[in-house]
Amino acid sequence: MNVINLQEKLTKFSDHWHPRIVGELNGQAVKIAKVQGEFIWHSHKDEDELFYIIKGTLKIEFRDGIKTLEAGEMLIIPRGIEHRPIAEEEVHLMLFEPIETKHTGEVKSTLTKDKLDWV
Amino acid sequence: MNVINLQEKLTKFSDHWHPRIVGELNGQAVKIAKVQGEFIWHSHKDEDELFYIIKGTLKIEFRDGIKTLEAGEMLIIPRGIEHRPIAEEEVHLMLFEPIETKHTGEVKSTLTKDKLDWV
Repeated sequence: MNVINLQEKLTKFSDHWHPRIVGELNGQAVKIAKVQGEFIWHSHKDEDELFYIIKGTLKIEFRDGIKTLEAGEMLIIPRGIEHRPIAEEEVHLMLFEPIETKHTGEVKSTLTKDKLDWV
Repeated sequence: MNVINLQEKLTKFSDHWHPRIVGELNGQAVKIAKVQGEFIWHSHKDEDELFYIIKGTLKIEFRDGIKTLEAGEMLIIPRGIEHRPIAEEEVHLMLFEPIETKHTGEVKSTLTKDKLDWV
């Protein structure tokens, strides 16, 4: 049982769109990621997903509009809703979602990571 | 699907040891609370619990020692582990745990809330 310092964990990697696991509870994972640029359109069939912004401004595009998230803000995206994150400048974020969730959802892409590492 | 701003949500209440729900996903709740002083010893039989510190310094006492959490830090307490939060000055925190979790765990106390409100 260790205290998890998000800023310290964020110094451990620099690549974009490659989440790392920092914690696990009740079958859910806590992940952190650095993102920049446009991600792919995807959805998660059976899993709701929480985005919490640590640093920067994240836009999340939906088929019917865009939500803008600033540091200290979060958004819960219900299962099945197509979305596409966009970060004009680098964003640091935290994700809560089931441990088995793939960040590209139902879409298999070169960005898909089959197994995430802990950091 | 609304953007949740934690600072704005924290302006909606001022009482201590009375968590409010700000979000729900995959059977888990995201809660925020303001705490000050000493809480009671308790544990959660079937539920792991995540504390994330938004503001202040939270000590969490365990039967075999104390962990100190600063803003930006989190701790996941596995099910069954007795703990007691202590805040010498006011602390703002976020909790992530199953929706049905009571904050006094298995202990029935005057602090127990039978039903938490959304904020």
